[in-house]
Amino acid sequence: MAALKSWLTIPKSSHFSLANIPFGIISTASNPSRRPAVAIGDHVLDLQEFSASGAFSSLGVNVSVFSKPTLNDFAALGRPVHRSVRKYLQDVFAENTSYADVLKSNNSLQEKALLMRDQVTLHVPMQIGDYTDFYAGKNHAFNVGCLFRGPDNALQPNYTHLPVGYHGRASSIVVSGTPITRPNGQILENPAAANKVPIFSPCRRLDIELELGAFLCKGNTMGKNIPISETADHIFGFVLLNDWSARDIQAWEYVPLGPFLSKSFGSTISPWVVLADALEPFRTTGIKNDNELLPYLQEKEAKNVYDIRLRIDITPEGAETTNILNSNGSYLLFSFAQMLAHHSIGGCPMGVGDLLGSGTISGPDAGTEGSLLELSKGGKETIRLNGGVERKFLQDGDNITIYGVCGDEESGLVGFGECSGTILPAPKI
Amino acid sequence: MAALKSWLTIPKSSHFSLANIPFGIISTASNPSRRPAVAIGDHVLDLQEFSASGAFSSLGVNVSVFSKPTLNDFAALGRPVHRSVRKYLQDVFAENTSYADVLKSNNSLQEKALLMRDQVTLHVPMQIGDYTDFYAGKNHAFNVGCLFRGPDNALQPNYTHLPVGYHGRASSIVVSGTPITRPNGQILENPAAANKVPIFSPCRRLDIELELGAFLCKGNTMGKNIPISETADHIFGFVLLNDWSARDIQAWEYVPLGPFLSKSFGSTISPWVVLADALEPFRTTGIKNDNELLPYLQEKEAKNVYDIRLRIDITPEGAETTNILNSNGSYLLFSFAQMLAHHSIGGCPMGVGDLLGSGTISGPDAGTEGSLLELSKGGKETIRLNGGVERKFLQDGDNITIYGVCGDEESGLVGFGECSGTILPAPKI
Repeated sequence: MAALKSWLTIPKSSHFSLANIPFGIISTASNPSRRPAVAIGDHVLDLQEFSASGAFSSLGVNVSVFSKPTLNDFAALGRPVHRSVRKYLQDVFAENTSYADVLKSNNSLQEKALLMRDQVTLHVPMQIGDYTDFYAGKNHAFNVGCLFRGPDNALQPNYTHLPVGYHGRASSIVVSGTPITRPNGQILENPAAANKVPIFSPCRRLDIELELGAFLCKGNTMGKNIPISETADHIFGFVLLNDWSARDIQAWEYVPLGPFLSKSFGSTISPWVVLADALEPFRTTGIKNDNELLPYLQEKEAKNVYDIRLRIDITPEGAETTNILNSNGSYLLFSFAQMLAHHSIGGCPMGVGDLLGSGTISGPDAGTEGSLLELSKGGKETIRLNGGVERKFLQDGDNITIYGVCGDEESGLVGFGECSGTILPAPKI
Repeated sequence: MAALKSWLTIPKSSHFSLANIPFGIISTASNPSRRPAVAIGDHVLDLQEFSASGAFSSLGVNVSVFSKPTLNDFAALGRPVHRSVRKYLQDVFAENTSYADVLKSNNSLQEKALLMRDQVTLHVPMQIGDYTDFYAGKNHAFNVGCLFRGPDNALQPNYTHLPVGYHGRASSIVVSGTPITRPNGQILENPAAANKVPIFSPCRRLDIELELGAFLCKGNTMGKNIPISETADHIFGFVLLNDWSARDIQAWEYVPLGPFLSKSFGSTISPWVVLADALEPFRTTGIKNDNELLPYLQEKEAKNVYDIRLRIDITPEGAETTNILNSNGSYLLFSFAQMLAHHSIGGCPMGVGDLLGSGTISGPDAGTEGSLLELSKGGKETIRLNGGVERKFLQDGDNITIYGVCGDEESGLVGFGECSGTILPAPKI
């Protein structure tokens, strides 16, 4: 498919081609109020300014949603509205637009609403009600299970029957670019020793987890489930997610109630929400599940995950960048539709702005693992970076950046931009 | 200590003596807007009406907080303000008040602001950002550990070193009186069989958990911890909490990431937030910890928990009420101060309105266990109720009511009122 051409210059390598139109929340030096925008090439379109000009009047959309500091109210308008707004914006920016007077030939609105992307500050795009992190990356679960229990018992008996997940901490989700402070906590220095007395220490095994996140645009009434056939109406869009993990704190704290402080010191998301519609062309099949699932988890559509090329680069302070892993959004045993159907099956009330994490997405081969724990075989092997630098886990000053992108330049890339964070030293306590 | 006497008739048996002054959120038939109130005997004082009359002018409090639909903004004013508002309201209601013109002799304000408690609707009092449930009831952890692993390994090695906890689901917290729908979910019918294939079923082992909850009134910056010496500034007040639990769903789902849907179908809290100041006279010592704790968990004050008499009654549909257990708020190994110091030690950002649950509070003796799982010895024994009714776990139509109260009638009771819920049948799916 040929790319949609625009009258605006959009670099071929941009994640934000006209095929994308992702939504985010911006502020600027001249206007510190947070407000919605879309990313287009090297620009963003300030939707508050754009809508104030009457540019959405033909759509009949309630434009008050474009003056809000989060995307929740826009999301709550529902999938058909997201679809029509995205389509309209594609038309407005199209080379031979029939809406030329709206923006293409409207220099004064361009000056007010069309900003350079590197001149805006990006914020967490949604007011996150609750955050749930799943564990649907089967290769990751298997790799980690092997490190703890060996290959024969790597996966728990429930693993292939339901998307395992746990409640996460919404307050510690930050937007790309926010520094992450290394957590202090309790660590068992020698787990094999009979004497189980922890020390207090900065985390020594600080790790990353490569994930996708899905934001919801529709909730359910407490006590009622969301049938899997209706889950698509509830999924607003997707972001990249780095679920930073303190492996040593986790190993000591996690029995019997699961990960806690080993996760809630920070989780980073990419700033632009790529709408579910924008990812439709990239549907593909996930990891095959040999179990027959219970009916509430059975999907009609076999292509229930997305072919998203995922990459992680590390840049130690003052050193060159190394691409340490490459994975793909399709390496999931359960889809987000299945996660949502499962999450609500007992009546748990989901809400607009809730975030679901996929779990770490590891591929089947060396170099596709989504965490340092896997890449370093539990800290036993050294990961060699460019310039002779070595790592097992993260050092202070390390920057981690996740990239995710679909499609090709010919058709126009649909990408997520960056999900980035740099490690600050633990505070002295 | 003799009770503070009031010009208002306060029944001796009321949980809401002048020594209490708990805060909640009300609405009424004539004014459906949610707004703050305090409970006094059989009455509530509508703080929006009260403050609109100028009654708080002598305090210099920002009275806009009394027109909000949650207590968050009032809470955020801080402990000294809570203290002065409570003290002032005690003075206003005192028999020989020096503020007689404010309310005692002001019939028109009494008519507007002093409502009968049974005429108001109560709501979840805070906008809950994140909810964390701890596991600090050592007797409960031991009892449950015995059921699963025997007495020698009942407690995990970490248990006495840190307050074990997990992130809960904020969206499923409801106020007393809200029905609870029995969850459907995946259940392993015969856990001992080699064939680990779950069925889909309504929960068959629906349980209660007797807990206390603490609401926060002050947060911390991400990356910075809250020193234990400063935790008191962060704790707004307390509620009763019933952490309804689906034991069969839990047993199948909880490895390795902890409880999930077995908890998030509903958690009930009592509507009135008893301020931390009101509980000060009831400080006592908790369960002794034989470990030397790491410094960040060491408290100067040995009396770090509260002597709250806790009781649970069950009323099957159409049957008489049975008191099935009696426990005490002091049966905790860790205090809320320790929970908060631990929660933030790695830099997790806490916020105003966050809720911390204590974990199930079981006493050491028969009849003091805080869950049916313990009372029925894992479902092996029958719990005999009045009128010849028997239970192991909850049946549809069962009402569970938790009560909690401190002090005595002579000094004036400081109680929580009721934390109540009735089980609705699972929906057909």
